[in-house]
Amino acid sequence: MLGLDPDPARLWPDAVGAVPEGGTPAERAGAAVAAHCTALIDAAGPACVAVKPQLACFERLGAPGWTALERTVAHARNAGLLVIADGKRGDVPVTAAAYGQALAGTTPTPFGDVAGLGADAFTANPLLGRDALEPLVDAARAAGGGVFVLVRTSNPGAADVEDLPVGSAPLWERLAALVRELGGADGGIADIGAVVGATAPEHLSRMRELMPHAPFLLPGIGAQGGRVEDLAPAFAPGPGGALVTASRSIATAGDRTGEPPAAAARAEAQRLRDAASALAG
Amino acid sequence: MLGLDPDPARLWPDAVGAVPEGGTPAERAGAAVAAHCTALIDAAGPACVAVKPQLACFERLGAPGWTALERTVAHARNAGLLVIADGKRGDVPVTAAAYGQALAGTTPTPFGDVAGLGADAFTANPLLGRDALEPLVDAARAAGGGVFVLVRTSNPGAADVEDLPVGSAPLWERLAALVRELGGADGGIADIGAVVGATAPEHLSRMRELMPHAPFLLPGIGAQGGRVEDLAPAFAPGPGGALVTASRSIATAGDRTGEPPAAAARAEAQRLRDAASALAG
Repeated sequence: MLGLDPDPARLWPDAVGAVPEGGTPAERAGAAVAAHCTALIDAAGPACVAVKPQLACFERLGAPGWTALERTVAHARNAGLLVIADGKRGDVPVTAAAYGQALAGTTPTPFGDVAGLGADAFTANPLLGRDALEPLVDAARAAGGGVFVLVRTSNPGAADVEDLPVGSAPLWERLAALVRELGGADGGIADIGAVVGATAPEHLSRMRELMPHAPFLLPGIGAQGGRVEDLAPAFAPGPGGALVTASRSIATAGDRTGEPPAAAARAEAQRLRDAASALAG
Repeated sequence: MLGLDPDPARLWPDAVGAVPEGGTPAERAGAAVAAHCTALIDAAGPACVAVKPQLACFERLGAPGWTALERTVAHARNAGLLVIADGKRGDVPVTAAAYGQALAGTTPTPFGDVAGLGADAFTANPLLGRDALEPLVDAARAAGGGVFVLVRTSNPGAADVEDLPVGSAPLWERLAALVRELGGADGGIADIGAVVGATAPEHLSRMRELMPHAPFLLPGIGAQGGRVEDLAPAFAPGPGGALVTASRSIATAGDRTGEPPAAAARAEAQRLRDAASALAG
């Protein structure tokens, strides 16, 4: 899966150069971000099944950033890719329902219904408990999609809270139980998945035990230090059991190889796909 | 504090009526949301020290919703109110830094720096641990503001994760310790606060013990069932020790009293202010 974490200060030069004169810095930067993501999708998309736009990276440009996000999502869908909106939202139920509308639903207004982002799935934070996740799950299901719930993230600080002992097991085992409960159990791959950092592969077998049917979203490959080769247990239910995601290592591949950015991104995405396919068998 | 959780289907009639013809449903709804929030700030703002826009409620209108958010924030600041952006963000460090740029910082782009939302403070989710909170804290401090970290939320589901036993104490005591550590301890009121649901006042004395200097953000008054009168321990450090927040009970006061919405909102905001002032002494 192609992570889209555009940094406006490090976009591909062609994307910056293509922006017409005129407009505010935010509008011009938003146009450049959309052009960058579009080109990245064209280059690396054929080796991917999904894109994962990181909402923070778009929000920092305000309304023009949100417009760039909408354009990026539309381009990915037109390219036949699934869209997983990575915002890690979580709030009390009434607000969670609003996030559901924003990401996968529609919002009734006096002027007509307003469609949200149209994501196929999105990430969610489970700290607020089951009633806070349910409106997100409902919104995703109503749109035919799913939710990836944070279980054990890829950053070192994950140890501070997610690994705290609750009885004899770490907190993340409780989060895994929540994922299993929410996901239904009619066989195959569930519509509620887990975000599981690829930087701690030693936990993967236990996670697969706790969540036999959940698809795993595995960030942290490449720039964050995770290796595809360590992720075999995630793929136990089959090729659809895990989505390996890489962002910076694809977008900046050209900085390392000296190739043009698009060609390097394509090659790196293909390399990761082949490594993941070998694991999935 | 005035919570701004605009539901486009339940805006004040004058705000809907003031929207000119033309534009997409999202653009027209965004204009109506901005007009509603502006009128609510004019009516209830004089009895408040801050507004708390709920980001989800704006995001569901896409880019026009973000424009409405920017207009609302500008209006509140012009009215002399602090702005606390309620998005409960939390992500790995590199992404947390992007949220910091979006909410309180600026983003360098090839076209010039782009200012973020300009919030004085914002809410954050601590599930990902200390290294994920630090970039948010840094961004808020650089802007002279602060962060409110979720410790124990106001929804019933809070019991599912936040109340889990870690050793002999609930998980939220660990989150409280994180708030105290991040907030520095040079006396007075710290710049890192805690979100503490007003629906569980039995925990407030213990929270004040664990976080003697942290300002408390207390949502859940009114529509969610919390009562101002139960919150005395939160105000122990003085009148600035706690921010009581009400949203729907102010915006919809007119539905209950039959008064025009603005007059009813003003009266309800004054009533809550007087009740909080009596506690703060």
